[in-house]
Amino acid sequence: MGKNNGATREKILDTVTELFVDKGYHGTGVQEICKAVNLGRGALYYHIGSKEQILFEISMSLLQMAHDATVPHVQTDDPPEVKLRNIARALLRHHATHGGGWQVAIREARFLSEEHQRKVVGARREFEQIWYRVLRDGATAGQWGPVDGIDVRAVLGMFNYTARWMRSDGPLSPEQIADRFVDLLLDGLKGKPADQ
Amino acid sequence: MGKNNGATREKILDTVTELFVDKGYHGTGVQEICKAVNLGRGALYYHIGSKEQILFEISMSLLQMAHDATVPHVQTDDPPEVKLRNIARALLRHHATHGGGWQVAIREARFLSEEHQRKVVGARREFEQIWYRVLRDGATAGQWGPVDGIDVRAVLGMFNYTARWMRSDGPLSPEQIADRFVDLLLDGLKGKPADQ
Repeated sequence: MGKNNGATREKILDTVTELFVDKGYHGTGVQEICKAVNLGRGALYYHIGSKEQILFEISMSLLQMAHDATVPHVQTDDPPEVKLRNIARALLRHHATHGGGWQVAIREARFLSEEHQRKVVGARREFEQIWYRVLRDGATAGQWGPVDGIDVRAVLGMFNYTARWMRSDGPLSPEQIADRFVDLLLDGLKGKPADQ
Repeated sequence: MGKNNGATREKILDTVTELFVDKGYHGTGVQEICKAVNLGRGALYYHIGSKEQILFEISMSLLQMAHDATVPHVQTDDPPEVKLRNIARALLRHHATHGGGWQVAIREARFLSEEHQRKVVGARREFEQIWYRVLRDGATAGQWGPVDGIDVRAVLGMFNYTARWMRSDGPLSPEQIADRFVDLLLDGLKGKPADQ
């Protein structure tokens, strides 16, 4: 795909994400999408495809970006605790800059076709596996106790839920929030310093 | 409101919750609602009101139920740790039995009128305050370190995100998951027993 097509594609995804944020997947008509991206129905289909395909592309491109922002931090010799802190910061930075996209991807996932749902679930599992491996490596290294799927869900629930409340103009930066969350996860409420 | 009306009202909310789960708020037409609850448009409006009003009632009744299931556990002389465990179990039990409702309430909240959004946010804050007070009381009693709004959001994110993955036929009961989460919150990964 040529450079211009790539740019158009990205612009379409960004614009439609905003529409889906405001009106929901079912509340957004194809007519409205065409108008917002300034393309005819045929050109829209040429660039991406159906409305469902656009939702799929939005979800996959978000997961891909989160994956790409995370992987470099685990391909290091850092100890697991440092890796955990770095991937947490990367995820919340990504949430902070793509909050609308995450809200759409999380909310509207059930409207994807079965095949697309399978692919999105697969990509999400792959992303969760990165977290699971870091948590497991820390346990293996004796840095903390053994972990399983419930821990990974607890951790990712905490982080993913920030899409609902974190604002880019909030009092704490995404990195500060990530650090607070990681501290809480590592040491618990009982390990919190009294002077924080 | 009479007994029969109450029953009708509850049945309407349950049925429409299912429709909203399947098709989303915007994907569900008033015609479809009338057909599903077997009422004419006039009778539907008489019992509840507009589609938006139904979404509002679903959200408020969920928050009210969660509130009612939680409050008895904090109006006791139990130590904060026991209170935390009990309200966590109560919330996950409620999520397990009203998962569809929670998904709708969380996803579709932005389609409520401004006035209704204000009321829902108010009710949610009131619910969050129960958690905040338990966490704060534990800190005051020296059971754990000081807490603030970030901790409350971390905790509630962890619990609320279960609406996306917890299944009533899953391998762990809601109470078991709640206990695991509370253990993690209190002691952290570093405090996890090696033999779990």
